[in-house]
Amino acid sequence: MATDYIAPVRDSRFVLEALCDLDELATRPGFEEATPDMIAAVLEEAGRFASEVLAPLDWSGERQGAKLVDGKVELAEGFAEAYRQFVDNGWPALDGSTEFGGQGMPKVVGTAVNECWHSANMAFALGPMLTNGATDAVESHADEALRAVFLEKMVSGEWSGTMNLTESQAGSDLSAVRSKAVPEGDHYRISGQKIFITWGEHEAAGNIIHLVLARLPDAPEGTRGISLFLVPKYLVNDDGSLGERNDVHAVSLEGKLGIHASPTCVMSFGDNDGAIGYLVGEENRGLACMFTMMNAARLGVGLQGVSIGERAYQAAVDYARERVQGGAAGHQGRVTIIEHPDVRRMLLTMRALVEAGRALALIAVAALDRATTARDDDEKKAQQARVDLLTPIVKAWVTENGQEVASLGVQVHGGMGYIEETGAAQHLRDARITTIYEGTTGIQALDLVGRKTLRDDGAATRVLLEEMRALTPELEGTAATAALAGPYATAIDQAQAGLDWLLEHGGADPDVPASAAVPYLMLFGTVCGAWMMAKSSIAAQRALDAGGEDAVFFKTKQVTAQFYFDHIAPRATAHLAALQAGKRGITELAAEAF
Amino acid sequence: MATDYIAPVRDSRFVLEALCDLDELATRPGFEEATPDMIAAVLEEAGRFASEVLAPLDWSGERQGAKLVDGKVELAEGFAEAYRQFVDNGWPALDGSTEFGGQGMPKVVGTAVNECWHSANMAFALGPMLTNGATDAVESHADEALRAVFLEKMVSGEWSGTMNLTESQAGSDLSAVRSKAVPEGDHYRISGQKIFITWGEHEAAGNIIHLVLARLPDAPEGTRGISLFLVPKYLVNDDGSLGERNDVHAVSLEGKLGIHASPTCVMSFGDNDGAIGYLVGEENRGLACMFTMMNAARLGVGLQGVSIGERAYQAAVDYARERVQGGAAGHQGRVTIIEHPDVRRMLLTMRALVEAGRALALIAVAALDRATTARDDDEKKAQQARVDLLTPIVKAWVTENGQEVASLGVQVHGGMGYIEETGAAQHLRDARITTIYEGTTGIQALDLVGRKTLRDDGAATRVLLEEMRALTPELEGTAATAALAGPYATAIDQAQAGLDWLLEHGGADPDVPASAAVPYLMLFGTVCGAWMMAKSSIAAQRALDAGGEDAVFFKTKQVTAQFYFDHIAPRATAHLAALQAGKRGITELAAEAF
Repeated sequence: MATDYIAPVRDSRFVLEALCDLDELATRPGFEEATPDMIAAVLEEAGRFASEVLAPLDWSGERQGAKLVDGKVELAEGFAEAYRQFVDNGWPALDGSTEFGGQGMPKVVGTAVNECWHSANMAFALGPMLTNGATDAVESHADEALRAVFLEKMVSGEWSGTMNLTESQAGSDLSAVRSKAVPEGDHYRISGQKIFITWGEHEAAGNIIHLVLARLPDAPEGTRGISLFLVPKYLVNDDGSLGERNDVHAVSLEGKLGIHASPTCVMSFGDNDGAIGYLVGEENRGLACMFTMMNAARLGVGLQGVSIGERAYQAAVDYARERVQGGAAGHQGRVTIIEHPDVRRMLLTMRALVEAGRALALIAVAALDRATTARDDDEKKAQQARVDLLTPIVKAWVTENGQEVASLGVQVHGGMGYIEETGAAQHLRDARITTIYEGTTGIQALDLVGRKTLRDDGAATRVLLEEMRALTPELEGTAATAALAGPYATAIDQAQAGLDWLLEHGGADPDVPASAAVPYLMLFGTVCGAWMMAKSSIAAQRALDAGGEDAVFFKTKQVTAQFYFDHIAPRATAHLAALQAGKRGITELAAEAF
Repeated sequence: MATDYIAPVRDSRFVLEALCDLDELATRPGFEEATPDMIAAVLEEAGRFASEVLAPLDWSGERQGAKLVDGKVELAEGFAEAYRQFVDNGWPALDGSTEFGGQGMPKVVGTAVNECWHSANMAFALGPMLTNGATDAVESHADEALRAVFLEKMVSGEWSGTMNLTESQAGSDLSAVRSKAVPEGDHYRISGQKIFITWGEHEAAGNIIHLVLARLPDAPEGTRGISLFLVPKYLVNDDGSLGERNDVHAVSLEGKLGIHASPTCVMSFGDNDGAIGYLVGEENRGLACMFTMMNAARLGVGLQGVSIGERAYQAAVDYARERVQGGAAGHQGRVTIIEHPDVRRMLLTMRALVEAGRALALIAVAALDRATTARDDDEKKAQQARVDLLTPIVKAWVTENGQEVASLGVQVHGGMGYIEETGAAQHLRDARITTIYEGTTGIQALDLVGRKTLRDDGAATRVLLEEMRALTPELEGTAATAALAGPYATAIDQAQAGLDWLLEHGGADPDVPASAAVPYLMLFGTVCGAWMMAKSSIAAQRALDAGGEDAVFFKTKQVTAQFYFDHIAPRATAHLAALQAGKRGITELAAEAF
């Protein structure tokens, strides 16, 4: 059933203004137009498009799915037309580079808008998300000539983009990539098979720009022998018009648990003469280029945890307001189930996780905006370190929460939640991929403990913890938030204890950080969420003190923050205990004993 | 894909022998045949049937689903034949009453066997599970005449049974049931529509015995006006042969998230003349009779959490032993992913939750066996109090864990886990109903805090906590388990603190226990699991000290117990904190603020 979706514009604005300091961001060169009024208008408009155009196709798209017919992907009804409108309205270009026709909005604004697309229709929104990542990679690493030919149309969405990484033997481990690239004049001939290629083939865009990892004939083994290539579906003539069909084809679609309207393709390159591809960046340095796409995509996927959670929450609230069942204290007769305390407990758990995740995802992207517009090297370094540190946390913690929220959404619906027609189960099915693709939770956690923590000896993490601690006096000094100060300090101490433990025990035996990694990530996610909710509660109090509109919104924010500290923050204790167990038990058993 | 399933006979025997004291149970009148050797043989045989007959139909059944064609349900291929073999082999009658042709085995043995059916093919096993509940209700509450006509064939499985409770306006709240029963001679005419009726219609059994909640014309409102009726699909002649088709029909099948091969029917009673039904128990006392079915079904559903978890675990282990990806410390080159610490962390989490759940479900059923064979009233009362207390915990905590385990099973498979053909996603979809049907987790929690705790002022819970505490000296005194003693004592203290808090704050304002209920239940589940793993570790040490076979099994049990204390038991802290927050935040917001 197509359920309603209303973009959470009020909360997005709150996060942008109060937590991301949009005012400051709008003083930076290039971001002058990102004023609160302008952003509010953009969010309203995006919300309308999401509600009116994308959301109604979510359920029908899921039921119909994408189909492969004679080598061509037939999208679900309405998707191609919606994509055309999406491009015509300029949405893909919102935070694109002005040099290539984009509107140059801060990424954090683009991200807040992207949240709406994924809430309204995740299967649809995956297309633009992947295009975005591919565009970033071309802009950052391709040479002038490639940029001139491809970027403008990718920024506008006229052409879409893909990431071709995975092969059947090379999933989390890209060192095992076997696809080949043979030099031939100014280009290369690419051959090989890639799996799990999101929006790998379709007819909605005029061309599809595949970014493909492959090996040169003389490449060293492992990740140091992988190069990145741009392989267009249609070759492009010198005058910019489309030329011949390239030798790249979808050979099948994956039968997935969810996001059925997103064509997830097995792509074959070079079944005939070899697909023509162009090198992006340097030879054998493809992985570094790929990480440009990947990091953007990781933040994007983290955000999907928020998007699905928000949609599941709205559906659950709508149902709970209408479904009459049983009696409740203080009410005569039968009541709507939103009056039952345990239903409220579930709804508040959903709400608290969604709001904390939204805030964390957006402040990570705001740090990215500040890194790219930094006034000096120190700021650039500091902001980049922050976004590097938060990326795996946003990707993994927020998507794990998205699954919990989607599952609670089913639970609120009771028996009806198990009936597909209700729609709640779709969100659970859709959500289930988010902790897997673009690097599983386990991979994110290894990134966090390894590259992001042990490598700098915890420096960036200590800066984060200091910033968190600096909030405590304000929390204590505000009557309405003073009760949070104790649990907040405890949460930070737990994160600090986790860091100290990791630095002390994580260096010598690599099995130790590998065993502790996911509990460590979940600990930091939980504490970062507490930080966001503490900040939010203070900001809400300021707004309440200032009087004005939206008092209910701000008071609800404070109740949700309190709920987070009562019900979510205490999970940090369990994560800390698990991580401090290190590799105990984990590496003891022989593989046969499992 | 039909994945392999091997019944966990070794662990089931361990739980029955070491934790449920099967030896003692076999000294009781009627249970003399339940010797360890006999039980081991039964489990082996059941395991073979599950692996060879039921498991191969799990995936194909899921893909085909059950279909309603011209009012008849067509089961998926092979299901009807498998059901015939199931009955011919005498499986339904294993723990049935000898008075009606059953083998009279203890319920705890039947339960260990049932685990295998649900692991192998949950959609199939739901049929016998519901028949079992219906049989219990007829045996406990129907008069001599009904018992004589129906029981023998229900015990053997020749006829199947259903539970017809839910109506579209009456889900968790049965007081809203509207189906009608009008007296007519020695029977009643039943009319109304019931939804979510598991195995409500099919042709695999010769007859289907529906147990139906309905209201008499003069019945009082609410739950005190509900009566229970037996409504056979085919009327039964005096000579026991089948007579006319009764006026009860499946009008549609529900489109569910999972268990597609289980026909979940909308049943219509009395579209024509009214279905002929017979009163079971007293008029207006139907709910009490229904609870006989319901409590058995609740333990049965709790067990499904174990079953799905075990199956998901086996599939994940199989995959992890074969899938090669990346390198690992101490290994040359690429390794199977079971060598990666985080994959092991996931597998051990699955294993620990499954083993703790199995132990808890079986000791609950063993208490039921002891209650029904009690030597005196005191024992009867004590054992019944124990099973009453544990039932909601088994139902809710174990099924919540089953979902976590099934989801981890998908995660271990990485991208392949999201592809339906792999089979991992099916278990997640199947598992999702288990926290909903037969009373949601929220309903179980209300039962636990209300009827099972506040009503007796915590008496039964205190007995349980004392029994748990009594284990500590032995834990401390055994070198191999001494390290568990501290965390074990902490866990019990946390449960005690939860109880004390509930008794102090739960009496005056009903919103308080209602808000704290689920965290309270999850706290007790977590601590009960710790109890089971502590007991298991001690028993394993005894077995190791005695020498003999299966040393790897017992050592693995101890590693799993340690892992439980490191990774699962600490969750108790978070549950305790949440419950101690009581209704704070939960009842503050207006319904419109959500």
